Amino acid sequence: MEGYDFSLEMHVRDYECDIQGIVNNGVYQNYLEHVRHVYLKQIGIDFAELARQGINLVVVRAELDYKLPLTTGDHFVVALKMRRESRLKFAFFQDIYRLPDKRLIMNAKVIGTALNQRGRPELPEALDRMLVD
Amino acid sequence: MEGYDFSLEMHVRDYECDIQGIVNNGVYQNYLEHVRHVYLKQIGIDFAELARQGINLVVVRAELDYKLPLTTGDHFVVALKMRRESRLKFAFFQDIYRLPDKRLIMNAKVIGTALNQRGRPELPEALDRMLVD
Amino acid sequence: MEGYDFSLEMHVRDYECDIQGIVNNGVYQNYLEHVRHVYLKQIGIDFAELARQGINLVVVRAELDYKLPLTTGDHFVVALKMRRESRLKFAFFQDIYRLPDKRLIMNAKVIGTALNQRGRPELPEALDRMLVD
Amino acid sequence: MEGYDFSLEMHVRDYECDIQGIVNNGVYQNYLEHVRHVYLKQIGIDFAELARQGINLVVVRAELDYKLPLTTGDHFVVALKMRRESRLKFAFFQDIYRLPDKRLIMNAKVIGTALNQRGRPELPEALDRMLVD
Repeated sequence: MEGYDFSLEMHVRDYECDIQGIVNNGVYQNYLEHVRHVYLKQIGIDFAELARQGINLVVVRAELDYKLPLTTGDHFVVALKMRRESRLKFAFFQDIYRLPDKRLIMNAKVIGTALNQRGRPELPEALDRMLVD
Repeated sequence: MEGYDFSLEMHVRDYECDIQGIVNNGVYQNYLEHVRHVYLKQIGIDFAELARQGINLVVVRAELDYKLPLTTGDHFVVALKMRRESRLKFAFFQDIYRLPDKRLIMNAKVIGTALNQRGRPELPEALDRMLVD
Repeated sequence: MEGYDFSLEMHVRDYECDIQGIVNNGVYQNYLEHVRHVYLKQIGIDFAELARQGINLVVVRAELDYKLPLTTGDHFVVALKMRRESRLKFAFFQDIYRLPDKRLIMNAKVIGTALNQRGRPELPEALDRMLVD
Repeated sequence: MEGYDFSLEMHVRDYECDIQGIVNNGVYQNYLEHVRHVYLKQIGIDFAELARQGINLVVVRAELDYKLPLTTGDHFVVALKMRRESRLKFAFFQDIYRLPDKRLIMNAKVIGTALNQRGRPELPEALDRMLVD
């Protein structure tokens, strides 16, 4: 999608909906995380492999604006761009749109960092290099 | 807990932890929601009963600051205070502390509203009255 | 897939994996349910729409044989066939295979029924007709 | 509870309920797992610590009989007894009862084994000793 670094289409699963018949507010973070991990893996940064090495990518802040709920049967796309937030932090700007009508479902900003084997913030080299500009 | 309207103690369940061995970032919203609902029910506002009447309490914005991760075996407390945010919105300030050391795990602000049977923002009377001051 | 009525390909999401780095044992029921619902919808039986009418499709028994775990990054297919189990019960035989190597991950038999508006077992007509033979 | 080795009381959380307003069928495995882990830890067998050592306790078969659904606001107890199933397998018999009326919600039999660092079935000594009789 134009203006984004990556996007992935997904479908709501019925078990993700709650008593109100709409996607539970906590499930959106699952969607956002999944798409971040697929994107990172594609650019050579593997969340699970890093975890095995003792390097943990972690969320330090999430800002989620819920615009319209997704519901059973909905098809949607999660689009993202990734930017450096500071020397040791990166930010994902992630927007969710319903398909095919492209109604905005959520705006999110998710700030993360990486913790090295000693639990100290330190970006893995591949990530640091990628965020240079 | 002093300075809060309500608090509830909980324990991490192993299935809530992910590959990194810590509670997955999306699970905290489950904790926060559960404690909001227990609190609301205690003051006479039943999320599930309202949903059956076609009145939906929904989150419109969440700001989550992740300070320290919870991990397997952890015991913690979720404390909250509820304030009016605007005519049609209310805010929950929710903090999570690990027990027994009271280390801060998360600061959150969750803004909600209620949608009436026609999908329009309208606070149920009990909620409106409670937030008068 | 040959010998099945329906199949759907899926990918493991990292948040579905637990401390052991493999898909948590409870998550497989999410996969199985999702594929049942997609299949049912395709043959004209909409779980969510039925729920809105007060007709609940429910699981009465599940038998799950875990053969090999799925893990982060895995691609897999869930295949199913549906058979009448008795006058008021139907059974889904669901198998999960890893892709592309087609290693068997899980064999499952999930038996369900439908509860009408009075909470009594009664198959919706469309379902009853479909299971006639 | 009489006739069981261990039991734990829990409360349904609203996010565990689905479109039908009842606890989603997959969530019961979360309840069952949580109670198994609390029990095992109490007798000196720590699931997470074993995982860190490369020893994985895994489920090989689950049989779940759904008798009555749990719903929003419900309080319940999960009771279990653990028996040796074979040289390399153990079984948990787990029953869920609603409180305070003690209506049976679920009967479950969950068979597990342990995989050593080479991925071969081998019970940790503490577990093997415990299941001797």
